[in-house]
Amino acid sequence: MEYLIGQAKTLIEALPYIKSFFGHTIVIKYGGAAMVNEELKGSFALNVVLLKYVGMKPVIIHGGGPQITSIMDRMGKEAKFIAGQRVTDEETIEIVEMVLAGKINKEIVSLVNQAGARAVGLSGVDGRLIEAKRYIPSSGEDMGWVGDITRINPKIIEIMDEQDFIPVIASLGVGEDEHRFNINADLTAGEIAAALNALKLIILTDCRGILADGHNEETLVSTLNIQEAEELIAKGIISGGMIPKIRACQIALCGGTEKTHIIDGRILNSIILELFTDEGIGTQITR
Amino acid sequence: MEYLIGQAKTLIEALPYIKSFFGHTIVIKYGGAAMVNEELKGSFALNVVLLKYVGMKPVIIHGGGPQITSIMDRMGKEAKFIAGQRVTDEETIEIVEMVLAGKINKEIVSLVNQAGARAVGLSGVDGRLIEAKRYIPSSGEDMGWVGDITRINPKIIEIMDEQDFIPVIASLGVGEDEHRFNINADLTAGEIAAALNALKLIILTDCRGILADGHNEETLVSTLNIQEAEELIAKGIISGGMIPKIRACQIALCGGTEKTHIIDGRILNSIILELFTDEGIGTQITR
Amino acid sequence: MEYLIGQAKTLIEALPYIKSFFGHTIVIKYGGAAMVNEELKGSFALNVVLLKYVGMKPVIIHGGGPQITSIMDRMGKEAKFIAGQRVTDEETIEIVEMVLAGKINKEIVSLVNQAGARAVGLSGVDGRLIEAKRYIPSSGEDMGWVGDITRINPKIIEIMDEQDFIPVIASLGVGEDEHRFNINADLTAGEIAAALNALKLIILTDCRGILADGHNEETLVSTLNIQEAEELIAKGIISGGMIPKIRACQIALCGGTEKTHIIDGRILNSIILELFTDEGIGTQITR
Amino acid sequence: MEYLIGQAKTLIEALPYIKSFFGHTIVIKYGGAAMVNEELKGSFALNVVLLKYVGMKPVIIHGGGPQITSIMDRMGKEAKFIAGQRVTDEETIEIVEMVLAGKINKEIVSLVNQAGARAVGLSGVDGRLIEAKRYIPSSGEDMGWVGDITRINPKIIEIMDEQDFIPVIASLGVGEDEHRFNINADLTAGEIAAALNALKLIILTDCRGILADGHNEETLVSTLNIQEAEELIAKGIISGGMIPKIRACQIALCGGTEKTHIIDGRILNSIILELFTDEGIGTQITR
Amino acid sequence: MEYLIGQAKTLIEALPYIKSFFGHTIVIKYGGAAMVNEELKGSFALNVVLLKYVGMKPVIIHGGGPQITSIMDRMGKEAKFIAGQRVTDEETIEIVEMVLAGKINKEIVSLVNQAGARAVGLSGVDGRLIEAKRYIPSSGEDMGWVGDITRINPKIIEIMDEQDFIPVIASLGVGEDEHRFNINADLTAGEIAAALNALKLIILTDCRGILADGHNEETLVSTLNIQEAEELIAKGIISGGMIPKIRACQIALCGGTEKTHIIDGRILNSIILELFTDEGIGTQITR
Amino acid sequence: MEYLIGQAKTLIEALPYIKSFFGHTIVIKYGGAAMVNEELKGSFALNVVLLKYVGMKPVIIHGGGPQITSIMDRMGKEAKFIAGQRVTDEETIEIVEMVLAGKINKEIVSLVNQAGARAVGLSGVDGRLIEAKRYIPSSGEDMGWVGDITRINPKIIEIMDEQDFIPVIASLGVGEDEHRFNINADLTAGEIAAALNALKLIILTDCRGILADGHNEETLVSTLNIQEAEELIAKGIISGGMIPKIRACQIALCGGTEKTHIIDGRILNSIILELFTDEGIGTQITR
Repeated sequence: MEYLIGQAKTLIEALPYIKSFFGHTIVIKYGGAAMVNEELKGSFALNVVLLKYVGMKPVIIHGGGPQITSIMDRMGKEAKFIAGQRVTDEETIEIVEMVLAGKINKEIVSLVNQAGARAVGLSGVDGRLIEAKRYIPSSGEDMGWVGDITRINPKIIEIMDEQDFIPVIASLGVGEDEHRFNINADLTAGEIAAALNALKLIILTDCRGILADGHNEETLVSTLNIQEAEELIAKGIISGGMIPKIRACQIALCGGTEKTHIIDGRILNSIILELFTDEGIGTQITR
Repeated sequence: MEYLIGQAKTLIEALPYIKSFFGHTIVIKYGGAAMVNEELKGSFALNVVLLKYVGMKPVIIHGGGPQITSIMDRMGKEAKFIAGQRVTDEETIEIVEMVLAGKINKEIVSLVNQAGARAVGLSGVDGRLIEAKRYIPSSGEDMGWVGDITRINPKIIEIMDEQDFIPVIASLGVGEDEHRFNINADLTAGEIAAALNALKLIILTDCRGILADGHNEETLVSTLNIQEAEELIAKGIISGGMIPKIRACQIALCGGTEKTHIIDGRILNSIILELFTDEGIGTQITR
Repeated sequence: MEYLIGQAKTLIEALPYIKSFFGHTIVIKYGGAAMVNEELKGSFALNVVLLKYVGMKPVIIHGGGPQITSIMDRMGKEAKFIAGQRVTDEETIEIVEMVLAGKINKEIVSLVNQAGARAVGLSGVDGRLIEAKRYIPSSGEDMGWVGDITRINPKIIEIMDEQDFIPVIASLGVGEDEHRFNINADLTAGEIAAALNALKLIILTDCRGILADGHNEETLVSTLNIQEAEELIAKGIISGGMIPKIRACQIALCGGTEKTHIIDGRILNSIILELFTDEGIGTQITR
Repeated sequence: MEYLIGQAKTLIEALPYIKSFFGHTIVIKYGGAAMVNEELKGSFALNVVLLKYVGMKPVIIHGGGPQITSIMDRMGKEAKFIAGQRVTDEETIEIVEMVLAGKINKEIVSLVNQAGARAVGLSGVDGRLIEAKRYIPSSGEDMGWVGDITRINPKIIEIMDEQDFIPVIASLGVGEDEHRFNINADLTAGEIAAALNALKLIILTDCRGILADGHNEETLVSTLNIQEAEELIAKGIISGGMIPKIRACQIALCGGTEKTHIIDGRILNSIILELFTDEGIGTQITR
Repeated sequence: MEYLIGQAKTLIEALPYIKSFFGHTIVIKYGGAAMVNEELKGSFALNVVLLKYVGMKPVIIHGGGPQITSIMDRMGKEAKFIAGQRVTDEETIEIVEMVLAGKINKEIVSLVNQAGARAVGLSGVDGRLIEAKRYIPSSGEDMGWVGDITRINPKIIEIMDEQDFIPVIASLGVGEDEHRFNINADLTAGEIAAALNALKLIILTDCRGILADGHNEETLVSTLNIQEAEELIAKGIISGGMIPKIRACQIALCGGTEKTHIIDGRILNSIILELFTDEGIGTQITR
Repeated sequence: MEYLIGQAKTLIEALPYIKSFFGHTIVIKYGGAAMVNEELKGSFALNVVLLKYVGMKPVIIHGGGPQITSIMDRMGKEAKFIAGQRVTDEETIEIVEMVLAGKINKEIVSLVNQAGARAVGLSGVDGRLIEAKRYIPSSGEDMGWVGDITRINPKIIEIMDEQDFIPVIASLGVGEDEHRFNINADLTAGEIAAALNALKLIILTDCRGILADGHNEETLVSTLNIQEAEELIAKGIISGGMIPKIRACQIALCGGTEKTHIIDGRILNSIILELFTDEGIGTQITR
């Protein structure tokens, strides 16, 4: 009985958060451990379904680097990277699409369905959701079919929301001639948050958030603004794969998103912990 | 952090309940200690608002016997009762209406508004919501303006629901000639649950529920069906003010309500405890 | 037959008025003799129902000073006034609410229902229709819970109109903390006319209208504009209880109402006489 | 002032009629003196517009025998009749259509527009409103393009009603091959009343109604049922042009129309007199 | 089989045109040989119905000079013209209306119905579609009831479009006092194209289009802009009945129509030939 | 010009077909040569887009056996078949899903987008469109994750149709526990045609249709009914891969589809040839 009373109290404590997020779009970049570990996967799906049932509109974006490399291996195709980005020749982009849109995307759809909602998988080609053009790095090197987003056509997402389907989006772009592009999933999440005028962008990572000392997880920065983030990049404190996550937050914030969150996907119920508590568990980036 | 993790877990545990009640009408008979004690009042209001935000349609019904008697006292009018029912002469029905529709009803509306939703107070005369005719007891005694419900016109409630206002209804009926009737609030709640095809009817009382031994609160009956309830009435185990509550449950169940609940309004968050746990805290009556 | 032919002619003569008011909101401040005399009460209700049926959207606002004082008397509470305004202590505001929202409001709802439409009673607390803050007279005296309107939330009225219910509104405000305020009903009518962008505000009084010579009812001023009304106030020709009525007209006219009317509620069918004839029967105030 | 008070009273007396007809379709067969005399024409149009503004849906049906004959004369074409029906050869049906749909129909549209509503003229060919097949009299004589109605397609009328246009319909049918048919306008009115599930069918004539003694206008029969009407036909008391009017009433009543009225179009405001008084002015035929 | 393959290819070749016209309004001025010759009439109707079925909104405007003169002849009324315009006395305007709105309009409605769509005939008086005032020629001569358009009220056309009826409009205007005016049908088509923001205005004539040498049909000008058209008028190359057609194009283009077309109505399927081929068959006039 | 006139004539000849298919759902099973040959692919896409623009609702279903085998080869996984059906172990079903939903599905979406419409790719897991259970062959052999359809949830397709997106569906089922099943694409097309109450089911094959003599393409059977098809199966004239196509037609016809068509996908514009000509090009199967 004690336990039940505590539970009821918790639900009531969640009410102010539920109220302030009610009816709003929450874009979630899904990835890392939360996409691999079985317990974390189930927890993620339940979190998303809960958001849906208490009145929010969750939208899930995903990439899938490790799975792509693994299938390439099995197909005897060597993966090449320049400055952390996959060099994407014709054969590679076909494998990328097959793995992202055919394997990972449908697994996530299933995961969410199993947790009790109805999800629909989409990629950038569906309804020409994500239009892109060829990305040219400053180094001038040929990255192949790596793309920059030029336009989001959000109508297909809006229809899913209205009809209470949860959209799950594979990060793939489509060129004017319908050729597919490999796109960074963090940046896709940022662009989609901006296009949907989302209230929040939440990026799941495999660390606690932004760390003042990258080697010490106890040095979590709870909140910072975009300018402070830029300074941390300039100082080299934010580096590597965290940089596109910061860029995604910038894009979303510029596009009208109120707050962006980089959180630890290795923790059970991380999304709910971030959304339904004052302190949150990760790093919150604001304008 | 431990605490937060527990909270997140609780929310996820509530999800199956939220899903199965989503979009459904929950009629709540409000009364007793929960209408007097300040802490219980606040708790009640937050419970109702939470139901609203997680997708249910709560409808509140109330009476107000003690407050009526107290105002009658102040106005120098003596209250008379026959077999537990108020003898309601012309002057009394005017006071009843004034107290129920003007004082108590608006206090509840305020309580709910303060908890963060938008409530609207109604009585049986508004949109002719509750039509009634004179009640004749089997004893043949003249009870005055005590009424039996003849018809519910639920349109005004449905409009409130569609527009996300929470209806708060004072238990007063209206005759063909617009004269008002004093109606038992439990029965009103039952009739309205039936008319709205509510999923659940919840009646707040000042005891733990139905007790196998009326003098021992440890003898709570967790669940029983209508026939079993009839037998307990026949045996005198259910008696007094509990009888109209059982009658209300019967009316609701006949009208299509799935389950009815008689719960202890003296416990904080009693509604949530009953709805969001398997065991519940009171007595559940089924068909 | 002569008589019938005359009746048909009258209906046809009403057509131009019906056409020009069609689909518009008409706010009516109800009070005085029309709220006491049985014949006038019935006539008022039929007038309102006729407006509804020929395509207008009537909205009724009422106060109820004399009834409040009478119930206070019965409850042994002395009424105090400063400069014509009721000093409203804690106990008084409770009685005010009980009488306005519980007794008078529901009586008017019944009256209109009986005349053949469907009415719904509301007060400022319902849907937080009338928000208010404490009124501080220039004298600095403490008037208690007397309030100034700070905001009208008309959504609940609009819903009633769309669904063909006639809203009947008790003049009570609600503070940020949900405490109730006693508000002048004339001013409430003016604010609501402004908030609804009403075509007309009609105020029922117990005199013929504005009189050039306050002691001589033959000196009715048929029409004047706001500036002329101000001059009559400055000269003391308009004084006492007529001043808030003029203020109400100003508020409505500033808010977009086309014409305001102060008419004699002691005449049968006074609303129809004012609306469906060129000359009207009272004083018309324009911008 | 006396006069004004009388007017207000008349409006209030009309309220019960307005209420019971609200939202209902009223089909009016227009013809006879009311279509010729200037004062009667204006009165007719104002009556129709009043019905529209107090919430009814008037639908006007007309023929135009005398005007057809007059134009035929001017075009040097002789009119022939067998048993009161026009023998309609190829040339005649062209003239009939031109006069009904082009001249009379548009005059009525103008008349109603001038009275302050928006009318739209239609004939049986528009949206294939009135489908017909060749009429074969029992005598076996060839009547040419005289037709029997086989089907009404009311969609075009319903659209007009929803958009607050008043439909004015020329009584012409259209065959499977789109050839036009000359159709009795009384019967057309009956069929359209049935197809629209009209509340009332009103037929304007040039006599007081049905007379017990056809030569004495004082012998008006105020009300009779279909069976009684049949008996009067059998006895020869109802004869000639009155027979198709009775047939029209039968068709309407079978199709669900509640009451049908044959009234004197020579009286000013005859429609209003019939609808807004208990006695009415003509003959009412019921089931 | 060869033949079938060619047909399929043709349909696919039409796709780009279908796509670019999809959902747009196409105003067609119908007249000349296409309104007289039986084969051309059938072809015209099928063209219009095809436009409807492949997603366009065709609107047909017509006049009918020759038929008016012919009926006037039969009625012994002499037709008079000044500078090519019909002098329209009281008697003439009545015949004009009767012939246009009653005879020709309904014939076209039938033609389109027979081709498989649902058409509805309208004239300027219906819903006061075409408002006009008296036309005063520069010569100052009295032309009688010849009118200039002052305003188009397109609501009635829009309703027809939404409900998938094809509007067929007789070119007649209506004055403030509801008197009818004889209006040039080319100009009416231009004004209606402008009011509806049509994509295209197509005018059917009895010549190939605009000819550089009016006596030689081989000198067709395929495309020109409004300024070039003005120069051809100034040089006298465009003259007579072609001038109001050019004026109609100007009106439409000013009102937002994208392209206007003057085409040869003597060719079978002329509308489809103009719309579904790059070259077209007539003269295209652009801004 | 000759050529243009022929084209216009062809469009007009297509009108009766366009009219009778307008607004109806056409389910197309895509496969074989039409999915491989570049020219046929482009032709297929244009055919589908044309159907959409002339008012039909095309729905595309596809499988992809050869591509699955080819990717399995590349991944060093041997394909096994029993009685023509793929034995589908855990590893195989993952590859099947990846190839069907990730590679082929998105290629078809692109193809249709390029032809000028907006397509959206779906598989059985999206919105749980295709529910299935394990298929047990009569031989009792373990086929692995080969499934039988148990239920179609067409809501997601209906939403696509309403919003003018063309759904492209990969033939994959989903079990109660969300595990995926390999489903015959012909049968899926039949079930979806039945669930959508499609007007037509069109199955593209690599032969001319059903042949009376399987070795002679000149022996095409133009039309047959279900019973006749059963007899041809019993006689062994219909055999192998044609049998599931016949079963698909049966399912569709039982579910309310009017006609089903097995046509030669090796011919350019085969869909249009079948739909827009009387003879058609393949075999038509009716009830």
